[in-house]
Amino acid sequence: MTINWHNYYADRTKHMTGSQIRQFFALTERPEVISFAGGFPGNEFFPCKDISAALAALVLEDGKQALQYTSTEGIYELRNYLAQRMTLEGKSNSPENIIITDGSQQGLDLLSRILVNPGETVLVEEPAYIGGMSAIKSYGGIPIGIEMDEQGVLPAVMEKTIEKLIKDGNKPKLFYTVPNFQNPTGYTTSLERRLKVLDLAYRYNIIIIEDNPYGNLCYEGEVPSSYMAIDKGEQVIYLGSYSKILIPGIRIGWMAGSQSLIEKVSLAKQTTNLCSSTLGQQLAYRLSAEGYVDMHINKLIDLYREKRDVMLNSMKRYFPADVIFSEPKGGFFVWVKFPDYYPPSREILNLALKNNVAFVHGEGFYSNISSGIHGARFSFSQPNAEEVEKGIKILGNILQELGCDTKLKAVGH
Amino acid sequence: MTINWHNYYADRTKHMTGSQIRQFFALTERPEVISFAGGFPGNEFFPCKDISAALAALVLEDGKQALQYTSTEGIYELRNYLAQRMTLEGKSNSPENIIITDGSQQGLDLLSRILVNPGETVLVEEPAYIGGMSAIKSYGGIPIGIEMDEQGVLPAVMEKTIEKLIKDGNKPKLFYTVPNFQNPTGYTTSLERRLKVLDLAYRYNIIIIEDNPYGNLCYEGEVPSSYMAIDKGEQVIYLGSYSKILIPGIRIGWMAGSQSLIEKVSLAKQTTNLCSSTLGQQLAYRLSAEGYVDMHINKLIDLYREKRDVMLNSMKRYFPADVIFSEPKGGFFVWVKFPDYYPPSREILNLALKNNVAFVHGEGFYSNISSGIHGARFSFSQPNAEEVEKGIKILGNILQELGCDTKLKAVGH
Repeated sequence: MTINWHNYYADRTKHMTGSQIRQFFALTERPEVISFAGGFPGNEFFPCKDISAALAALVLEDGKQALQYTSTEGIYELRNYLAQRMTLEGKSNSPENIIITDGSQQGLDLLSRILVNPGETVLVEEPAYIGGMSAIKSYGGIPIGIEMDEQGVLPAVMEKTIEKLIKDGNKPKLFYTVPNFQNPTGYTTSLERRLKVLDLAYRYNIIIIEDNPYGNLCYEGEVPSSYMAIDKGEQVIYLGSYSKILIPGIRIGWMAGSQSLIEKVSLAKQTTNLCSSTLGQQLAYRLSAEGYVDMHINKLIDLYREKRDVMLNSMKRYFPADVIFSEPKGGFFVWVKFPDYYPPSREILNLALKNNVAFVHGEGFYSNISSGIHGARFSFSQPNAEEVEKGIKILGNILQELGCDTKLKAVGH
Repeated sequence: MTINWHNYYADRTKHMTGSQIRQFFALTERPEVISFAGGFPGNEFFPCKDISAALAALVLEDGKQALQYTSTEGIYELRNYLAQRMTLEGKSNSPENIIITDGSQQGLDLLSRILVNPGETVLVEEPAYIGGMSAIKSYGGIPIGIEMDEQGVLPAVMEKTIEKLIKDGNKPKLFYTVPNFQNPTGYTTSLERRLKVLDLAYRYNIIIIEDNPYGNLCYEGEVPSSYMAIDKGEQVIYLGSYSKILIPGIRIGWMAGSQSLIEKVSLAKQTTNLCSSTLGQQLAYRLSAEGYVDMHINKLIDLYREKRDVMLNSMKRYFPADVIFSEPKGGFFVWVKFPDYYPPSREILNLALKNNVAFVHGEGFYSNISSGIHGARFSFSQPNAEEVEKGIKILGNILQELGCDTKLKAVGH
């Protein structure tokens, strides 16, 4: 008997929407495509030999623990290491403030699960990380975008938005942000802005969810202190990840926050997947504790900086002058704005795909989709430097033709 | 500023309850405790040397893929292997019918998420696996227990319950079952019962969620065909796991079902944790494809059979004659029923803990808690054979004293 599944689905499934990025998996796996689409780390930088040796050793020495279930919160050693690390970074934390998650994505999911009621508003950056908004939406939350410039969200706009939502009877209690090398813009929120946003958070009782997968990959200068470090209380929940600074294939990230919150998150996580991979946790712990991860991050910084430079230099060289793009000081992403008189970036993407080049068009990153029509996210993390230049050059040619064409048409009409 | 988190939690968090099993983690980690509490596999059976070598080789050879993100559904090779395997076991499946999950617990969570509306009833066995009921409850579902005997749930009771729920306007659309060596009873549902239950499922449009983590660990005879294999349509969703047959520390299980359902599950999983550990998937695939897992299962069967025999023989020898227990033909669990005139098993547990022996009292396994007062779950999977005997003997002494005491009191009053 064939089942009509729509008679069985829960109402909340109507909020579940596929990420357009997911559709790119099939594409990016085609070897002939130069992909600026996924936010995957460059796998040519994976230290396979060292990880192979580390895994072999830890399973031989401690397999009885490393291959067993562990507690829902995660192994004590890793939580203790991360707590000490975060204490050094300016916020006193103990292992009880930390829970290990399947990447920071699970952190976003668990927080949405325990904090977001259907119909409630959640402040996000505009544009914002798609996976963050998906998590919020999947529990019925309504992301409300706050306009950004290169210094981060605009506090005046944020305050106005909060006031308006209060009037509408739907006051937000959460603000979700990627303050360093943001996904998708590459922008870093300045310290001044962080202080102003935190001040708004105190005044309006808004919890800040600080998602920081890229902060360690800083290619110029330094990142400002984290929201968590400058907060004097419990206003900030912090999400970290090993996916970008080591490897994503072990699915290990963490959440730091108030102990009573972490206990509730742990209850939710228990039902979700009992615990994160013990093997992955042990690996992350060993490589962190012996200083290997820090050393590896230093290497990554040089390697990714080069790719970033190639992408920005190629865009300067090959893109028409009327195409604007961000110049990130770290992370993986360059945000491109095509002029309004260009076709929607969705159409430009289709042309690019025909030429075996992929990126992500901007619509999905906006809580109000129409705002993203002319934006696009380019990630320089996966292709090698040569491919980065080649891909941008191909796209430059497409854009040069398009730009001319559009202008001529505009003149012609 | 300290946050009053109760002002922030979503309404659904009130359905999140801690498993008593979780509280045992701290206890079971104390080396002096003989624990029959957790359903953990025995870590002395972990093939650490072989897994160490397999991990080292696969990361060296294929680290660029094995350490990267993978698709939400999971790596194709593993899905293809599992599909072929399930086809051999009687149900034609293709890779599109399979999604890899973080153990079968994540399968239960995702299914509850996409199928269960708040207030809806879900049929479960009575007693039932706590983690399954927690998943259902965490999305607002109401588990309704169906009485079991040693052949599985009673079809007549099931039909009566369904009819009653229909009259009450709350018809169940799901039945959650662990048909082989059930958690917590150790009972295996007979083929005859499976056919009757499936018939009810067809008649009342009920989807069967078949959770089968223990089916391969069969110490006597054979397990009946799975619900999935005897179903002619799409009535059954199957959950499998590598946790008990290989290792749990990689968090790898799978779900098999109708392709359109699996696509929806995949949407939900994407938001939850993007993908399961690629490293874990690669390891599971390699060891499965080369026949290692099957070979290992054969070893485990002999090893666990011995522990089971020691537990059952020790219970026969040391427990008072009025204590009844199940005699499972596979899996990890023995279900104990203390006579009504004994103290609640919760109190017996407290006495046992004072003597460094742990088990799980029965209340949590019942949708109606009071029914479980005199039940208890004993797992023989973790302690070694010597400890099994020692622990049961200690408990036997406690029970002998208790039994006498209670009877004397009864006589005295």
